[in-house]
Amino acid sequence: MMEETSTQNIDRRIQKAAEAFQFLKNTTVTERAEFMNAVADQIEVLGVELLEVTHQETSLPLARLIGEKARTVGQWRSYAKAVASGIYTEARIDLAQPEKQKGDLRKYNVGIGPVVVFGASNFPFAFSTAGGDTASAIGAGCPVIIKAHPAHPKTSQIMADAITAVVKAFGWPEGVFSHITGTSYEIGGYLTQHEDIRAVAFTGSFNGGKALFDIANSRENPIPVFAEMGSINPVFAFQNLLENKAEALAKEYSTSLTLGAGQFCTNPGVFIALKGKALDRFINALKEEIQNVAPATMLHKGILESFEKNRNIATEQTDIEIIASSNTDAENDQGSASVIKTNAKTFLNNPVLSEEVFGPFGIVVACETDEEIMKIAQQLKGQLTITIAATDEDVRNNPILINILKDKCGRLLFNGMPTGVEVVYAMQHGGPFPSTTDSRFTSVGPDAVKRFVRPVSFQNWPDEFLPDELKNGNPLQISRMVDGVMNSESLKLQTT
Amino acid sequence: MMEETSTQNIDRRIQKAAEAFQFLKNTTVTERAEFMNAVADQIEVLGVELLEVTHQETSLPLARLIGEKARTVGQWRSYAKAVASGIYTEARIDLAQPEKQKGDLRKYNVGIGPVVVFGASNFPFAFSTAGGDTASAIGAGCPVIIKAHPAHPKTSQIMADAITAVVKAFGWPEGVFSHITGTSYEIGGYLTQHEDIRAVAFTGSFNGGKALFDIANSRENPIPVFAEMGSINPVFAFQNLLENKAEALAKEYSTSLTLGAGQFCTNPGVFIALKGKALDRFINALKEEIQNVAPATMLHKGILESFEKNRNIATEQTDIEIIASSNTDAENDQGSASVIKTNAKTFLNNPVLSEEVFGPFGIVVACETDEEIMKIAQQLKGQLTITIAATDEDVRNNPILINILKDKCGRLLFNGMPTGVEVVYAMQHGGPFPSTTDSRFTSVGPDAVKRFVRPVSFQNWPDEFLPDELKNGNPLQISRMVDGVMNSESLKLQTT
Repeated sequence: MMEETSTQNIDRRIQKAAEAFQFLKNTTVTERAEFMNAVADQIEVLGVELLEVTHQETSLPLARLIGEKARTVGQWRSYAKAVASGIYTEARIDLAQPEKQKGDLRKYNVGIGPVVVFGASNFPFAFSTAGGDTASAIGAGCPVIIKAHPAHPKTSQIMADAITAVVKAFGWPEGVFSHITGTSYEIGGYLTQHEDIRAVAFTGSFNGGKALFDIANSRENPIPVFAEMGSINPVFAFQNLLENKAEALAKEYSTSLTLGAGQFCTNPGVFIALKGKALDRFINALKEEIQNVAPATMLHKGILESFEKNRNIATEQTDIEIIASSNTDAENDQGSASVIKTNAKTFLNNPVLSEEVFGPFGIVVACETDEEIMKIAQQLKGQLTITIAATDEDVRNNPILINILKDKCGRLLFNGMPTGVEVVYAMQHGGPFPSTTDSRFTSVGPDAVKRFVRPVSFQNWPDEFLPDELKNGNPLQISRMVDGVMNSESLKLQTT
Repeated sequence: MMEETSTQNIDRRIQKAAEAFQFLKNTTVTERAEFMNAVADQIEVLGVELLEVTHQETSLPLARLIGEKARTVGQWRSYAKAVASGIYTEARIDLAQPEKQKGDLRKYNVGIGPVVVFGASNFPFAFSTAGGDTASAIGAGCPVIIKAHPAHPKTSQIMADAITAVVKAFGWPEGVFSHITGTSYEIGGYLTQHEDIRAVAFTGSFNGGKALFDIANSRENPIPVFAEMGSINPVFAFQNLLENKAEALAKEYSTSLTLGAGQFCTNPGVFIALKGKALDRFINALKEEIQNVAPATMLHKGILESFEKNRNIATEQTDIEIIASSNTDAENDQGSASVIKTNAKTFLNNPVLSEEVFGPFGIVVACETDEEIMKIAQQLKGQLTITIAATDEDVRNNPILINILKDKCGRLLFNGMPTGVEVVYAMQHGGPFPSTTDSRFTSVGPDAVKRFVRPVSFQNWPDEFLPDELKNGNPLQISRMVDGVMNSESLKLQTT
């Protein structure tokens, strides 16, 4: 059981966060990067005790947790490096010129203010208490109030203690990081409504994310909510590719669909292709693959119940055929893989089939014509990812369709399965609504920092009072745009 | 009178815009920059006929209109230059590496989709039909549907014709730019609700902007609204500066307050200082200045009526003293300058006095103590600008206050009056709510383009099918981040 943080206690912590913001927004990118690297070090040395606790709380295999922990440490370090470079500071200096009315103008990005982060259950390290949202908010200069995920409270506490230890070691105000626990939905609303909160990051269900979005927008002063809310990540398989590689594709699809008991936001829940011999080959091969997938323990009872409920709802629709399911019976707490098949008309007319089923479950949509595939593309809601399984010739033959698919996702894959992400600059983990509330931002990769900054412009300020990022001497040696040109130089001006 | 575009006609134009988006999102930054420069050329050659029409419609002096037209042309050109550089494309390439799971990832920004722009009445060129919102949306790769401001329909039509001529000359789809006319509020809501619209830009009243914001967020798929909704742009005058320069400051304040009949979003509506001899000197000097300001014709009857109504409401509150008003009686359609005075307690407790009065009207708040000034700063709502009228010593003496003021605005001036903007990278025209709906973006300067893009990531795409911005050869020679390092080079890879 998890202790509920009282409302009074929440108020006190938000007050501390607001105070800490006055400190944090004046730290330099260098200081914040040092802090982030120290957090990485602190997490890195957490040993087998953490892994065992998390394994018990989440049922995720140790090997996966070791990898996720390394990724989390890497996230803090790579975001720290990006922050230190000044890329998210976007320092812009337009020097005084005779023809300018306003004289000297200098702009940079500051933290937007205290951020509430809601951790996800499926990534207890990388998307939770010490995950990417926390790292990117602190990198931006924002205090973080984490609402611990109730499915892994001990893991959350260990991670919170690690960050708090670094706050103390650095002598930073305690409000830089706060850990709030509780299971009630009301806490989320309370945090989002609080006047001192300036942004919200969330990973979870559509209902949860949309509720926070609506609360945030009905505040007296609305604030941004970055909610990642799920996706069916369709695979569009084209004819040439399917004919060439039906069996290999089935294996790849099955592996991606059932990885980690299918508990990934980027799980490819729908497979779309023309009906015919090649698709029949794919389905036959898929059947064998899925039959051999052993049931796996899911993250927690709630997820298992939702999975079974939503899978059964989908399977009980009309014009549905079960084409593959695991040969092994699921034991207690385990989710069992299955794939159903339907036709395009049913898929297009029954919105239930476009809902995410979080777990190892897929739908194959067998289309009569290219027009039906086009209709599915046009009707498709926003997705985190879309895969084009195609030969070069297929791509050349379908420019209009592929152009439309670009509008429907954040990441477009050519012949690859989407499960998982890569923590690099070029990753986009965020797609059009309803996959996320704001397709303009990513929650993975250093660019995640962008979510939590806003620009402030200084007009004719004496050098002494400018933030280091904008001072003539460029003491942080960051890259800046000076009169339209990027450089890392110091300005040889007479300081006033 | 303005012809109302019918709902049917609006639907047709949005349909055309959606079609044009499929074209426009695949244009390169170079092509869009060429288009924008051509629009600049087209507007530049519009001669005295345009100026006379606009002068008649807006009562703005010809000299001002000549300047605003030059600014508008300059906007198109400077945004074009920025777009061509690729800065808003933010191309990021992470090449395949042995340790990477996902292989080759490449991300760039594409246009978000069709954008509705609501022009402002107070800048018939720079913030209207061919203004900065239109230029930045097209620069981002988004078709624009302009809702013409009913106060200058002929001006709007001339500008629309200029842009349309360029669309034709380039052979681009007609839906790249559409001009919609009408006076009803319903049109705005209808446009904002339309499922094919992807973003809204608006400059005007709080009620107008907030209504669009609420409509956009209650859509089935919410979209961003960039509304600039007004600001009282406070001036905080500190003691040393006030003592040194009371009279000069009064002259500067009066000039800024009454420029263009006070019809600027950045008009400094409130002046805050400690009461005492220095403030008395300021007030005496201000009285003389304001008395000599001749009444000026306002933009249109609606603005004049709102101005007089809101000024009278403010003036009729309790504990208000009229300290200065123009010696000359206002004639028909003219607004007359005046300044009132109150104390901090009244200002803090009466929210009416923190409302923007759009026109030549100011409030001097005489504070008893530094604590009262601090309270005003803490209670202050979001502003476009704040001025610190201070000596260096004043700044050194008030670090906490100045730190708080940084949270309350987009542009912080040191000893200058805020009226007007400069179209440069370092300009920030956008502040915390309620001055705008989104403090993370600016509506002036090339960075305005950022509002209308979103990132798309390509995983393992053959070079042939990547957009030019991401191709190995870097045919557009834009600056890109490759494996974390910025450069404009072409990649020497084997193309697949």
